[in-house]
Amino acid sequence: MKTVYFTVGPSQIYPTINSHIKNAMKKQIGSLSHRGKDFEEIFSGMTNSLKTLWNIPPEYSVFFVTSATEVMERIIENTVKKESFHFVNGSFAKRFFDIAEELGKQPKKVEVELGKGFDFAKIKIPKSTELLCFTQNETSTGVMLPAEEIESFKKLYPEKLIAIDTVSSAPYPDIDFTLTDIVFFSVQKVFGMPAGLGVMIVSPKSIEKSMFLQKKGMNIGSFHNFPTLKKWADKNQTIETPPVLEMYIFWKVLQDLEKIGIENLRKQIDVKADLLYDFFDNHPVWSTFVTDKTFRSPTVIVANIGAQQKKLKEYLQTNGMIVGSGYGQNKDTQIRIANFPALTLETIEKLLELLHNYK
Amino acid sequence: MKTVYFTVGPSQIYPTINSHIKNAMKKQIGSLSHRGKDFEEIFSGMTNSLKTLWNIPPEYSVFFVTSATEVMERIIENTVKKESFHFVNGSFAKRFFDIAEELGKQPKKVEVELGKGFDFAKIKIPKSTELLCFTQNETSTGVMLPAEEIESFKKLYPEKLIAIDTVSSAPYPDIDFTLTDIVFFSVQKVFGMPAGLGVMIVSPKSIEKSMFLQKKGMNIGSFHNFPTLKKWADKNQTIETPPVLEMYIFWKVLQDLEKIGIENLRKQIDVKADLLYDFFDNHPVWSTFVTDKTFRSPTVIVANIGAQQKKLKEYLQTNGMIVGSGYGQNKDTQIRIANFPALTLETIEKLLELLHNYK
Repeated sequence: MKTVYFTVGPSQIYPTINSHIKNAMKKQIGSLSHRGKDFEEIFSGMTNSLKTLWNIPPEYSVFFVTSATEVMERIIENTVKKESFHFVNGSFAKRFFDIAEELGKQPKKVEVELGKGFDFAKIKIPKSTELLCFTQNETSTGVMLPAEEIESFKKLYPEKLIAIDTVSSAPYPDIDFTLTDIVFFSVQKVFGMPAGLGVMIVSPKSIEKSMFLQKKGMNIGSFHNFPTLKKWADKNQTIETPPVLEMYIFWKVLQDLEKIGIENLRKQIDVKADLLYDFFDNHPVWSTFVTDKTFRSPTVIVANIGAQQKKLKEYLQTNGMIVGSGYGQNKDTQIRIANFPALTLETIEKLLELLHNYK
Repeated sequence: MKTVYFTVGPSQIYPTINSHIKNAMKKQIGSLSHRGKDFEEIFSGMTNSLKTLWNIPPEYSVFFVTSATEVMERIIENTVKKESFHFVNGSFAKRFFDIAEELGKQPKKVEVELGKGFDFAKIKIPKSTELLCFTQNETSTGVMLPAEEIESFKKLYPEKLIAIDTVSSAPYPDIDFTLTDIVFFSVQKVFGMPAGLGVMIVSPKSIEKSMFLQKKGMNIGSFHNFPTLKKWADKNQTIETPPVLEMYIFWKVLQDLEKIGIENLRKQIDVKADLLYDFFDNHPVWSTFVTDKTFRSPTVIVANIGAQQKKLKEYLQTNGMIVGSGYGQNKDTQIRIANFPALTLETIEKLLELLHNYK
C-alpha cells in the first residue's frame, strides 16, 4: 500500500509527476544543455505558465533559485541597505529576520504569539524601513495573513518595498502583484513537486533598488544577485547549470494546473479546508490552533491534539497516512495537515473518517 | 533511437539512473521529510559513500549546495577577508575570480593563454594571499592541472588555504586531501547525474577561518555559511529543504561507482582518453587543442576542427551523437568531448569510427 503524505512539505507528490518524469527520462531531458534552444523552451514555458496561472504582470521578472531560504538571503542582499521590517508570527518569519541580521543589516520586527495574526491598523512602520517582510502563510503555525491586508501597506507606504513569503500557499492567494514587490515560494508545497526549486516574482522597482545598491559599492551577492538573475532570465537561461529535469517537471505541472484553472484550484482547496476546520472545531478534545477565522490558512491546517499526538500519528500511519508534527515548541502536541491539490477531496474525507474513528 | 550525449555537462545520464529514479518514485522519496530518519540515512549514506570512494579524511566535512557556481560564492564569502589568488586558464577559473571581485574582495591572478597550463615554479604568491584558487580541470578548454603540482603549493605556503575546482573531473584526480582545503564539483559531469547539486569537501581549517571572519563581524553569508552548513551536516540534515530525490539518486550512483572501485574507474577513463587523443593527434586536419601532454584532461577532450565544425557536429547528430561546441571564442571551431563513465569504451569506439569515416 502506498502511503499518503499529508506533511506540509515535502508533501504528497502531484499525481501527474510520475508520468512526467518517465517522459522526461525518455526524452533525455537530464542530458540537455542549459545553453541550448530546448532548455530555453523549458525556461520560458515555466515562466509563462506561472505568469498565466497566477496573473503576474508581464513587467515582473521570475527568478528560479534553489530554495525559499535562498530567496530570503537574496532579497535581503539585493533590496536592503540597512533596515528591513518583519512581521514575525512563526519560525519562517523569524528565519527571514535572522537572515537579515546574519547579513549585517539592522532589521526591526513586530512579533505576535504563535497562532495569532496581527492587528495591522495599529502597526507603525518606521520611516527608515526599506523593505517590509510578510509571511503570508506561516507553515509552522497555519496562520494566514490576508493578501488585502498586506497590500494595504503599499498604499500607505508606496515608496517602501514589500516581500511576501507564500512558500506554502502559492498560488492560492489572490495577490495584486502591482501592490507587492517580491513574492516567493518553493515547489514542494502546493505544487506537489520533489524539492529543489525556489521561485521569486520580482518587480522592476526591486531590481532598480539592487542596481542602486550595487552602484553604491554594496555587496549584493554574485551569481544570484538581481541584475545577474535578470540578465540571464531575459534570455531564458541561468548563469549556473540549473536543475533542468526539475524545471521541466515543474513546467509540466504548471500546465496541468493551468488546465484546472486557478479559480477551480482555489475552490477545491476551500471545500477541503472547511471540512478539516469543521472537524477540529467540533471535536470534543482536539481543537484548531488558529482561533481567529480571519487568519486561518486554507493550505496548512494546524490542530491541537495534546498528549495523544504520538499515538494518533502512529494510528494514522498504520492506516497509510502520514500527517506532520507540530513545529518547534508544539512539536509533540500538535499535528499539521497539508491541504494541497495532490490531496484530493476523497483523500481528505478518508483522513477525516480515520480521525473520526480514532479512539 | 536514443541520442548519446558527449556534451561535457549536462551529459549522458549514468545508465543505472533510470532504475534508481523508478525505485525512488516507488518508495515515495520525493515526499520524505528532510527532518526525518529516512532522510538522515540518505544524507549520511551520500557523505560516507563519497568519502570512501574518493579517500576523503574523516575530519573533512562534505557540504551539499546546488551548483559549483554557488560553491565559488560560498568559498570566497567564508574564507577570504580581502585577497584570493587565482590561476586563470579559462572561463570557469575566470568566473571564480569575477565572483571574488563581485563580493567586494581584491583578488589577484596569474593568467595564461587558453589551452595552456602554468609554469608553476615561476609563480610567486603574494604574502597577502589568503586563498589559492585552482581550476584543476578547466571545462572550457580541456586543460588539466596535475594534482601534485597544486598540492606542492600547500608545502610551500602551509598557512594559506587552497581551493580546487574539480567540477568536470571529480572523482578522477587522485587528490591528497590533507594538502588541500576545499575541493568542489557538480554532479552532472563525471557522475552522470541530472544537474542540481554542488558538492564541496571542506577542511577543518577552512571552517575555522569562516568562524574567525564571522567573529570579526564580517558578512560570511547566511544559511549556507560554513558554520551553519557544518552544524546541519553534522546531524545529517540541511537547514533548507534540499533536493531530496536528487540526493537519493546521487547516493545510489555513488554506491554503483564504489562497486567498480576508484582505480578501475580511473583506468577505464585513461584507456578511452588515450584513444581520443591518439585520434586527434594523428588526424591530418584536426588536432588536439592542449598540446602539452602534461596538461591534457582525461575527462574533457577538446579538439580544433576549424571551419568544418558545424558540418561535423550535424553529421554526428544525424548519427545519434551530440558533442559539445567549443567555449567562448572557440565556440564555432572546436568540439569538446566528455569522457565520463556513462560513455563506455564501446560508445567511444563508435564515436571514433564515425569521426574516422567523416568526409
